[in-house]
Amino acid sequence: MSMTSTNDDVLALAQHLLACPSVTPATGAVFDALEAMLTPLGFTVDRFLAGESPDGPVENLLAWRTTGPGPHFAFAGHLDVVPPGAGWTSDPFAPEIRGDLLYGRGAVDMKGAIAAFVAALGALPDDLPGTISLIITGDEEGPATHGTLALMDRMAARELRPDLCLVGEPTSSARLGDVVKIGRRGSVNMWISVAGVQGHVAYPHLADNPIPRLVRILTAIEAEVLDEGTDWFQPSNIEITDLEVGNPAHNVIPAGATARISIRFNDRHSGASLIERVRAIAAPEGGTVEAKISGEAFLTEPGALSDLVRGAIRDVTGVETELSTTGGTSDARFLSRLCPVVEFGLCNATMHKLDEAVAVADLRALTEIYARIVERALR
Amino acid sequence: MSMTSTNDDVLALAQHLLACPSVTPATGAVFDALEAMLTPLGFTVDRFLAGESPDGPVENLLAWRTTGPGPHFAFAGHLDVVPPGAGWTSDPFAPEIRGDLLYGRGAVDMKGAIAAFVAALGALPDDLPGTISLIITGDEEGPATHGTLALMDRMAARELRPDLCLVGEPTSSARLGDVVKIGRRGSVNMWISVAGVQGHVAYPHLADNPIPRLVRILTAIEAEVLDEGTDWFQPSNIEITDLEVGNPAHNVIPAGATARISIRFNDRHSGASLIERVRAIAAPEGGTVEAKISGEAFLTEPGALSDLVRGAIRDVTGVETELSTTGGTSDARFLSRLCPVVEFGLCNATMHKLDEAVAVADLRALTEIYARIVERALR
Ligand SMILES: [Zn+2]
Ligand SMILES: [Zn+2]
Repeated sequence: MSMTSTNDDVLALAQHLLACPSVTPATGAVFDALEAMLTPLGFTVDRFLAGESPDGPVENLLAWRTTGPGPHFAFAGHLDVVPPGAGWTSDPFAPEIRGDLLYGRGAVDMKGAIAAFVAALGALPDDLPGTISLIITGDEEGPATHGTLALMDRMAARELRPDLCLVGEPTSSARLGDVVKIGRRGSVNMWISVAGVQGHVAYPHLADNPIPRLVRILTAIEAEVLDEGTDWFQPSNIEITDLEVGNPAHNVIPAGATARISIRFNDRHSGASLIERVRAIAAPEGGTVEAKISGEAFLTEPGALSDLVRGAIRDVTGVETELSTTGGTSDARFLSRLCPVVEFGLCNATMHKLDEAVAVADLRALTEIYARIVERALR
Repeated sequence: MSMTSTNDDVLALAQHLLACPSVTPATGAVFDALEAMLTPLGFTVDRFLAGESPDGPVENLLAWRTTGPGPHFAFAGHLDVVPPGAGWTSDPFAPEIRGDLLYGRGAVDMKGAIAAFVAALGALPDDLPGTISLIITGDEEGPATHGTLALMDRMAARELRPDLCLVGEPTSSARLGDVVKIGRRGSVNMWISVAGVQGHVAYPHLADNPIPRLVRILTAIEAEVLDEGTDWFQPSNIEITDLEVGNPAHNVIPAGATARISIRFNDRHSGASLIERVRAIAAPEGGTVEAKISGEAFLTEPGALSDLVRGAIRDVTGVETELSTTGGTSDARFLSRLCPVVEFGLCNATMHKLDEAVAVADLRALTEIYARIVERALR
């Protein structure tokens, strides 16, 4: 196992990926580049399009290599990036090293991590049995309807079942390795509607104003304490995000009123249980509830996988890792249905920002960490 | 005093006015028709335009006749009508008698009452001293900005000051004379706005959601008891008529939220006192209040004028009159600044509806009642 050659490679690999423009949804060249990196390493590469307009088609890449009976370790990520926006110091798709940093859109989110994983693969001992796969989508920053979910279908069809999964999102905060995510909160939006009877404000007894009933529902919702948080999750939270009546007539009591709420919830709840709970609050006031679950909460209980990742981080960097479940959603919410999942990657300070950049030293350290993680997972 | 000739006239007068289309704002022919009725009775007629776009110009008619020192009795009304709408049995501006009823847009609101008042004038004794005036606008059903208010300015400029005023709006309900209005509630609209700090629902501690604060303000407003009503007024009432946030992004905590309320209030309150009261409720939650007062409450305390009207009604019809302050606003809210005002006119069952119609017998009885009212007011 030669770390030296790997450390030389990761920078070139990252520059290669960053040089391919891939504003979400990613297509073509950036996938060609990744495929060209994986085939020499003995990976079978399956590229395919999934979905139809408006959320598709989406380009995806599934790669796997089996070297004998043993565990299946999966690395998941995305090649698409958010739009760079105007005002970059250098071309966002012409990666440039200035000082200690490599600049380019996707440097930390998450072409840098993909490059580190590929570089780590090149550094692995030859005698590791088991399966390694890469689950790479071109649509994580967009609707994400035909990305990782389609890749999971593709894996199922090929009877590829990972035992452990690492998602390479930029979870580190102040220093590489300080934060690993072992879960994410779930998310559900609900629309609470109250129907009334329209009428003139001078004759309220002939009308039925829906707004006071909606206000009572919202007051009850604001008073709800979903939970106090858990060992691993902050408390679930409800935000009222919109109110709509749309009544231009000053003297008219409106016929209906609607509020929208957004709930971020931990693993004490499911989207369905929360919908039932809000329906129970709304029903006595005649309110009805429509809902859309964006993702369920998930938690990979701290244990073998997180210990393995923390150990690899400690060995390479000396950093003590915090296990976290904060922040928005990621494709880990889907992959958690298959097996234990953790998310670990570069520092996220510049993600989605102008002049997104990664420390070259972090790219090299992440490559070492990923290599140790895979080696220990397959041993 | 010959009631017979008067009773013959009122039907022809009403038909004449109804035959002139005068959807609000009324102009031209219908005013010509009224002027032609008043000049033979010795009235000075002053017609003028008031106001500018968008609420003007508005055509108005002021007429007066002084026959010697004595009280000044004013009759107020409007020649404009609301649009007829489609579906009439006969042409809404080609008055037609079918059975006991005269059909036409404005039959009860309120060309019929104007015709009755003119017919009553023709039947008055010659020896009544005092002043009689007619305050007739072409814009009561519209914005009413340059109608009765402009007529009041015109009267002031001519030093015409009524001592008593009767507004000929259709106040009767089941039978002619059963309801006379001696006041109206005031009306004020307010916009309550709460500013917050926009943010992502996943990071509520970095945002400040304005909606829960608006909900608390609205809860407090709903809990307000403005009064329990008075001898003459029903309780003042607050209706929340609109909610607006306008936030299309499901994951965003909005930067602001607004509610609109409409208050109908009795003479225990003024528009200004209610604005202060709502501001005091909104302020602790950071809410600000914009307001528009449509009209102040007014009450002509039951007394000489209402007794006079009730006596005339009883003498002609045998009906016992209820004094009321219910319903929407009318131009009486303006005239009440000048002198005691009551509103009394035809049955309102078909006002603003298809096939608006007045009983010919009611036209005749109203003429008799109006004649007695004027005679007793000037004696
Ligand atoms: Zn990402
Ligand atoms: Zn009217």
